Amino acid sequence: DRPLTLIAGPCQLESADHAQMIAGTLAEICARVGAQFIFKGSYDKANRTSLGGRRGVGMDTGLKILEGVRNSIGCPVLTDIHERAHCAPVAMAVDVLQIPAFLCRQTDLLLAAGETGAAINIKKGQFLAPWDMANVAEKVASTGNNRILLTERGVSFGYNTLVTDMRALPIMGRTGYPVVMDATHSVQQPGGQGNSSGGQREFAPVMARTAVSLGISAVFIETHEDPDNAPSDGPNMIYLDQMDRVMTSLMKFDALAKEDPMRV
Amino acid sequence: DRPLTLIAGPCQLESADHAQMIAGTLAEICARVGAQFIFKGSYDKANRTSLGGRRGVGMDTGLKILEGVRNSIGCPVLTDIHERAHCAPVAMAVDVLQIPAFLCRQTDLLLAAGETGAAINIKKGQFLAPWDMANVAEKVASTGNNRILLTERGVSFGYNTLVTDMRALPIMGRTGYPVVMDATHSVQQPGGQGNSSGGQREFAPVMARTAVSLGISAVFIETHEDPDNAPSDGPNMIYLDQMDRVMTSLMKFDALAKEDPMRV
Amino acid sequence: DRPLTLIAGPCQLESADHAQMIAGTLAEICARVGAQFIFKGSYDKANRTSLGGRRGVGMDTGLKILEGVRNSIGCPVLTDIHERAHCAPVAMAVDVLQIPAFLCRQTDLLLAAGETGAAINIKKGQFLAPWDMANVAEKVASTGNNRILLTERGVSFGYNTLVTDMRALPIMGRTGYPVVMDATHSVQQPGGQGNSSGGQREFAPVMARTAVSLGISAVFIETHEDPDNAPSDGPNMIYLDQMDRVMTSLMKFDALAKEDPMRV
Amino acid sequence: DRPLTLIAGPCQLESADHAQMIAGTLAEICARVGAQFIFKGSYDKANRTSLGGRRGVGMDTGLKILEGVRNSIGCPVLTDIHERAHCAPVAMAVDVLQIPAFLCRQTDLLLAAGETGAAINIKKGQFLAPWDMANVAEKVASTGNNRILLTERGVSFGYNTLVTDMRALPIMGRTGYPVVMDATHSVQQPGGQGNSSGGQREFAPVMARTAVSLGISAVFIETHEDPDNAPSDGPNMIYLDQMDRVMTSLMKFDALAKEDPMRV
Repeated sequence: DRPLTLIAGPCQLESADHAQMIAGTLAEICARVGAQFIFKGSYDKANRTSLGGRRGVGMDTGLKILEGVRNSIGCPVLTDIHERAHCAPVAMAVDVLQIPAFLCRQTDLLLAAGETGAAINIKKGQFLAPWDMANVAEKVASTGNNRILLTERGVSFGYNTLVTDMRALPIMGRTGYPVVMDATHSVQQPGGQGNSSGGQREFAPVMARTAVSLGISAVFIETHEDPDNAPSDGPNMIYLDQMDRVMTSLMKFDALAKEDPMRV
Repeated sequence: DRPLTLIAGPCQLESADHAQMIAGTLAEICARVGAQFIFKGSYDKANRTSLGGRRGVGMDTGLKILEGVRNSIGCPVLTDIHERAHCAPVAMAVDVLQIPAFLCRQTDLLLAAGETGAAINIKKGQFLAPWDMANVAEKVASTGNNRILLTERGVSFGYNTLVTDMRALPIMGRTGYPVVMDATHSVQQPGGQGNSSGGQREFAPVMARTAVSLGISAVFIETHEDPDNAPSDGPNMIYLDQMDRVMTSLMKFDALAKEDPMRV
Repeated sequence: DRPLTLIAGPCQLESADHAQMIAGTLAEICARVGAQFIFKGSYDKANRTSLGGRRGVGMDTGLKILEGVRNSIGCPVLTDIHERAHCAPVAMAVDVLQIPAFLCRQTDLLLAAGETGAAINIKKGQFLAPWDMANVAEKVASTGNNRILLTERGVSFGYNTLVTDMRALPIMGRTGYPVVMDATHSVQQPGGQGNSSGGQREFAPVMARTAVSLGISAVFIETHEDPDNAPSDGPNMIYLDQMDRVMTSLMKFDALAKEDPMRV
Repeated sequence: DRPLTLIAGPCQLESADHAQMIAGTLAEICARVGAQFIFKGSYDKANRTSLGGRRGVGMDTGLKILEGVRNSIGCPVLTDIHERAHCAPVAMAVDVLQIPAFLCRQTDLLLAAGETGAAINIKKGQFLAPWDMANVAEKVASTGNNRILLTERGVSFGYNTLVTDMRALPIMGRTGYPVVMDATHSVQQPGGQGNSSGGQREFAPVMARTAVSLGISAVFIETHEDPDNAPSDGPNMIYLDQMDRVMTSLMKFDALAKEDPMRV
């Protein structure tokens, strides 16, 4: 029942300077409000809605940026992987490997990730029930690696729409692994803008607060100083200059939730 | 931003004594924790899954029980109506008329309810989007009656399953009417037991807490001293002897939410 | 395994002349292609999306129009009812009483309809699983009236969207009652135009053909000579001058399906 | 508007003899009924519900089996791939590379598959709208390879359930690429048996017939002489000895549909 962890960053890594700026700002906020902080950045967006979507800086550059953040800010860093061959090299540079939602059933990727010994954050597929994640986590755990996090990011609800079932959080919690709420992607509207995904940035704090009120371990938020010009996920990212207010508020709910744990 | 209101009762009215016992217990809890209280009881369950489901004590007996509660406990009382001809007589005996979710698009019922001048609690249909409720409320408001409450009770999600989209609460709140979370029916599994509906009682407090953390006006909870033997909704009702704990906890989240309102 | 029945008409009754024109055209088409024909018209749209939607000609005028069609065309007529008190008078004038989807769980309406002895067409609620309709039909059958039809009209699928599960047709068929496919309302987009429902007229023939290929008893289609100016359901009604082509095609699939019945 | 193609096989390849038996039986049926035939077999099930699910014979053995079928039966063969590095070697041995539904947004896999010049069958993700597939196909087409097929296999509908929207077939058809109905996986109940997926074998012919009635290019069916003992997908596979009857029936609907094309 430690205080809330914030997993946050700019979605796509853009440059070392940009990552340092975002990470520094967030680390400072977390220090002030008493949250733990993990920096998140992607070096490759491997499943864009359409070919025209920007892919990212690539693995080599990305890992250098992430190591740079880790060294200068002193926070753990997280990135997502899409092929099993990437697990080992990426795990040398980062603390947490993230399994994307679409890939959460790919056995070889889960095993390769688990075998690195890094912490593994598995996003629940938009096509899965929360109880299905026990089998998914077991694939990683079979490698002897129990440093597993399970992330809710919404479930398919008709076309181009996701809904978050709050019951999913305590249900995934029954596995004993820390549960994370992805407040950014749960308000995504997949494919909702034709050639890219839409989103409802204004509801990200709603998702975060309701989830935190249940006493979860971490909240995942993508943030940018200028979301409308970010290379991906702009419509659902929170403005960086609002993160202080968001986190200040969330920590109050986190404290209350952890004083008053809900047993389901 | 007044403190949370609890709308609660035993689902079906069973007898005057039973109603008084439940209402008295809840009124006392609410007084202690600083919540407002509205007693809820149904005199007729007009849309049971199957013919074998118990219907209730009937209108005459039901209204006497409700008036009795109002007089002895001094709390407002709420009941649901299913035909427009019932609106006027029922409104003589109760403070709040409730429009059932299945009937929330029936124009004549909404108009007849509105014309009584009573407060009208409209449950959102399982088949509606939250933004559709503005048109529904407008039907009542067209009568000159603006004493309207809008209640979330889950939306259809595949077969025999409901899901609650937390975004629905602030979206309905944009109408300016008070928003209520029905923590009991949102965890119903409609038709899920073949000849009756199932439910997930253990998740009712999850629905209540997450909704209250958003600063809603009221929470709706059905409760019974022996849910497994209640004539309806047993699987999703909370034990009466747990209501004190549930309300004590909810009031802390309510206070925090109202200190720190979320603007969406 | 009789040939397909067409249940069709202009959604809302507009005038005697209009109803006669539509009914005459459809009766002629059905005679030519070998289909049975039931004329459908509503005298009251009791659950419009918003107050501004046109309600209809009213019961008295509507029943006279329907009787006129029955007398002059010689076909059975169908209309929908919304209150139990309407069942008896309406059943004097029409052959088939239709229970609207939103009202398909209202026990008293089902009983009152059943007691008239008229045939009862029950639309499956957008919030129900197909197997839930056995309990619904049983409410009518409890009156001794077994002249029951069960209609598929889509199930809620996210917000403002319906989907038709083709498995629903054989599942409802297991009750032994004739199964009807409503090709018009299954392509409705409920509330999808803000103050009214949208629709996808172009997909109505898709719904009809796929359902007929399974050997169902009847197809329900709303049609109008000028759908875009019809008082309701315009976006999903088929042009009257296309009904000949639609029915000619459907009868070929019907014949094949009934030669080659599918046992599920 | 060529006659229907059957894409079929035993889900997992088990042995050369088994594959030859299944392929021979199906080829003979297809020859008799006038259908084209593509043999399908998987050498690796890379995304089983749980670790305990059998993975398959592996790539080397699997490709030998597939080449054997191609040589002896003279039919094209199809298999699914899960990593981009597999595309080139697999394309040497098979005619059609299949992109699994979970992986249908993985840009690199689509590009690598397209670059082989083989035909590419892309399964629509359970989390995608049918119109989203145009962007997916475009990723393959960007390689200059237009030999693309698009397969419907159901969309997420609540938990552990899929539904097939028949509108998806003509919507995907608007791309100009051949459309395939996967009658086996569309009746899967993902994760529905706890540690494995359930299925509703009895509804596979319903999915096939309704889809074929719309004039699609191909139907995908998994079949086994003893489904209950098959290493995967048993609950939704059709018995091999029923395939003759199923195909005989489907070809009648195919002929009618192609005489009477539906323009949407």
